[in-house]
Amino acid sequence: MDSKEFRQRGREMVDYIADYFENIEQRRVFPDVQPGYLKELVPSEPPQCPDSWDNIMKDIDKAILPGVTHWQHPHFHAFYPWTQSYPSILADFLVDALSSAGFSWASCPASTELEIAVMDWLANMLGLPEKFHHCRGAGGGVTQNSAGECLIVSMLAARHNALKHLSSIYPNEDAAVLLSKLVIYHSKLAHSCVEKAGMVLLIKTKGLDFDDKHSLRGHTLETAIEDDERKGLYPFFVLATLGTTPVGSFDNIQEIGEVCNRRRIWLHVDAAYAGSSFICPEMRTQMNGIKNVNSLNINLHKWMLMNSESSAIWIDDKKVLIETMAIEPLYLQHHLSENFLSSKKNWSISLCRKFRSLKIWAVIRSYGISGLQRHIRNHCKLAKYFESLMLSDSRFQVIGTVNLGLVCFKLKNNHLTEKLLSTLNSSGKMYLVPAAVNEDFIIRYVICYEKMNERLIEESWNIIRNLASEILNQNYEEK
Amino acid sequence: MDSKEFRQRGREMVDYIADYFENIEQRRVFPDVQPGYLKELVPSEPPQCPDSWDNIMKDIDKAILPGVTHWQHPHFHAFYPWTQSYPSILADFLVDALSSAGFSWASCPASTELEIAVMDWLANMLGLPEKFHHCRGAGGGVTQNSAGECLIVSMLAARHNALKHLSSIYPNEDAAVLLSKLVIYHSKLAHSCVEKAGMVLLIKTKGLDFDDKHSLRGHTLETAIEDDERKGLYPFFVLATLGTTPVGSFDNIQEIGEVCNRRRIWLHVDAAYAGSSFICPEMRTQMNGIKNVNSLNINLHKWMLMNSESSAIWIDDKKVLIETMAIEPLYLQHHLSENFLSSKKNWSISLCRKFRSLKIWAVIRSYGISGLQRHIRNHCKLAKYFESLMLSDSRFQVIGTVNLGLVCFKLKNNHLTEKLLSTLNSSGKMYLVPAAVNEDFIIRYVICYEKMNERLIEESWNIIRNLASEILNQNYEEK
Repeated sequence: MDSKEFRQRGREMVDYIADYFENIEQRRVFPDVQPGYLKELVPSEPPQCPDSWDNIMKDIDKAILPGVTHWQHPHFHAFYPWTQSYPSILADFLVDALSSAGFSWASCPASTELEIAVMDWLANMLGLPEKFHHCRGAGGGVTQNSAGECLIVSMLAARHNALKHLSSIYPNEDAAVLLSKLVIYHSKLAHSCVEKAGMVLLIKTKGLDFDDKHSLRGHTLETAIEDDERKGLYPFFVLATLGTTPVGSFDNIQEIGEVCNRRRIWLHVDAAYAGSSFICPEMRTQMNGIKNVNSLNINLHKWMLMNSESSAIWIDDKKVLIETMAIEPLYLQHHLSENFLSSKKNWSISLCRKFRSLKIWAVIRSYGISGLQRHIRNHCKLAKYFESLMLSDSRFQVIGTVNLGLVCFKLKNNHLTEKLLSTLNSSGKMYLVPAAVNEDFIIRYVICYEKMNERLIEESWNIIRNLASEILNQNYEEK
Repeated sequence: MDSKEFRQRGREMVDYIADYFENIEQRRVFPDVQPGYLKELVPSEPPQCPDSWDNIMKDIDKAILPGVTHWQHPHFHAFYPWTQSYPSILADFLVDALSSAGFSWASCPASTELEIAVMDWLANMLGLPEKFHHCRGAGGGVTQNSAGECLIVSMLAARHNALKHLSSIYPNEDAAVLLSKLVIYHSKLAHSCVEKAGMVLLIKTKGLDFDDKHSLRGHTLETAIEDDERKGLYPFFVLATLGTTPVGSFDNIQEIGEVCNRRRIWLHVDAAYAGSSFICPEMRTQMNGIKNVNSLNINLHKWMLMNSESSAIWIDDKKVLIETMAIEPLYLQHHLSENFLSSKKNWSISLCRKFRSLKIWAVIRSYGISGLQRHIRNHCKLAKYFESLMLSDSRFQVIGTVNLGLVCFKLKNNHLTEKLLSTLNSSGKMYLVPAAVNEDFIIRYVICYEKMNERLIEESWNIIRNLASEILNQNYEEK
């Protein structure tokens, strides 16, 4: 494809995308395909000769789109949002054209410097303590590919400190032997990525009980720590969650932070979804105690209208991270980058990285803080509206507190709730996923669509209510 | 920005990108900025109110583009290529619009299924053994964010096997204690990501000497293994490189594979750059011995005209990897995905992933195997042409064998070579990076530009030759 054809195909793709969004409501949210559907549609042998763009687009229509789960559909209520917006995708389009591997200042100065600038913008917008601002403290923010990667990176920094300390006590022991003493704590409602991180780094992880508000409390943590210390283990890292995946609850980081602070334990906060809401000052009571936190991550692509992969992590001590992962072969050095700007590659596991900050910058510029706040507040308000509709019907039970864009609910028993969920999903009108909280099987209703409104909420409610009536009647008749 | 404005802004961006490529030769390849340049151009406070797209584009022109290192410039000869192509960026544009988090079959069936299909296409195109094809063997391919991530993933799979074996001998030892026995080998010319992976996973890594063709040989490896076994260590993983970063050399995987095979040591091959060349059958002699390899990675975004992040890894035993990283909380399960399709999230460290396969598919379709072969062969032929020009001038010494799109060279001493490099780079006409091989400081001339031709090669050669004359004359006068 030459430039001339690109000008034409690019225009067509712009229209294809705009048409997609304008007509998305007419699609099934979850595709009507079975596993293996694509085998019939994609030849098993790769093509020897070039094909036309027209044919490729025909196959996108015939083979690809019918197999897409439409995360941008108004009735996609599963997982958490995975956002985009026009300014974000336009910026990313340009990033793909520039195609630079921004692992160091020299490899793309604009990418490194803009990332530092927007991480400080975000720290400011979110009301984070000064220690997390590049321009003010010893810490700062950087993007990663995922929340899981953010968690591993913070665990690596904490592990670095812990092993340094243990090596001073056991100077002849191998680092890997000392590793066997380390232990991490998290709520049983924390995201599964903490268990995966533990498997990857061979560090013990312990899931702790939460209180009746689904919150991990300081005393629970302290008891677990004391138990493990008696067994000769070395507690060095706590993961607290603001906005858990199963039920959107908030661990008590005020209490947890005090426990960690007294014992010099690294406290990391996973605020993957809820974190974006802190751009609204009225939401910040949920992060009381943030001053005792060593690191926190927010998936900007979850609620801030930026495309993935925009996982942001802030850490209060840049030096630790750089000590943990710094590698400087000659081919990566540059005489103009002897300050911290050079070390972005040492802030993450992967060396190379896309120019991720351009879309972050474009979205903040295009929406302004006010526009992003309006977006968050709209989702929170509509979740309360959905909750109020549900509370008006005694057959439903709302689980947890509705603070964000998430409403968790169940029918009177797990069996009927499971049946409701599978019926809802197989209707193709809506897509939701369940969670397990204590003994309850619950359905999570998450507001993901940027332009969500009261009409669509009422539509959701009517679909759910009517299907519940059918299921409950059927259940009554069967008895 | 609403759909109507997007249709306009999208068209403008398409033209902006086409103009960028049509006029890229007129730009400095390395930007004329100093560290910190962006501070003056981006306000320290984030904007409260929305701004117009016009203003954002004005700032892209004023603040961003002047700070970009142009990896797509004809005279970008640093690192290795970081490619794009029109079909790739168009497919990625659509991916950003669909914005799905393809961590499981249900989260986006098309993303999971197309990834499996194109990984098999590529295995076919590259002539990989049957064991690496999803449709034929126990193994298969998957994409990751980076070569470093591919390496860690293969190390995790190998570690899983090694610890299982050691646990059967030392049933009461903690996994982390057993970890201290593990050791990894690689050539001293291997990419620095192996040292970083060792730091991340707390596994000892040992750089081994290479022969006079810059190749790691079987007997060198075997001697190192025997030494370490005598010390009570457990060799479990070897990284061999096809196309090293410093000099483009090939480790002898035939010999290394035999050593590993006899001792049941996991052999991983990093073919990040050179791997794409195996789509040309005449290049495959460089991968003789591939049948004894357990896993290999290729950065498709390095030489196959696909955008990052398209790091592909093939592994001969899927089950090991899944056992290593499988986590199945309720909210990630789906009744329709009980086969291996469900487990893509367990193939990588991060849970979520972009729909990376769409651009891979679009590029293979659009170029065909024949078009991609033509691209690789053009770069290889032009590198030989550049080498022939250089060999005609006795002041230059070519280092290593020119097999790919890389020519390494030096002047008669390190000091003059360093001076030549810094003068070339500060001229803004060309960008190259050095490498250290034995005691030599060498300059790497890499062909990155898709449309490279003889005229541009001659232009490169004339710039280099003329600057060398100036430096050598000046040096003569100084004496």
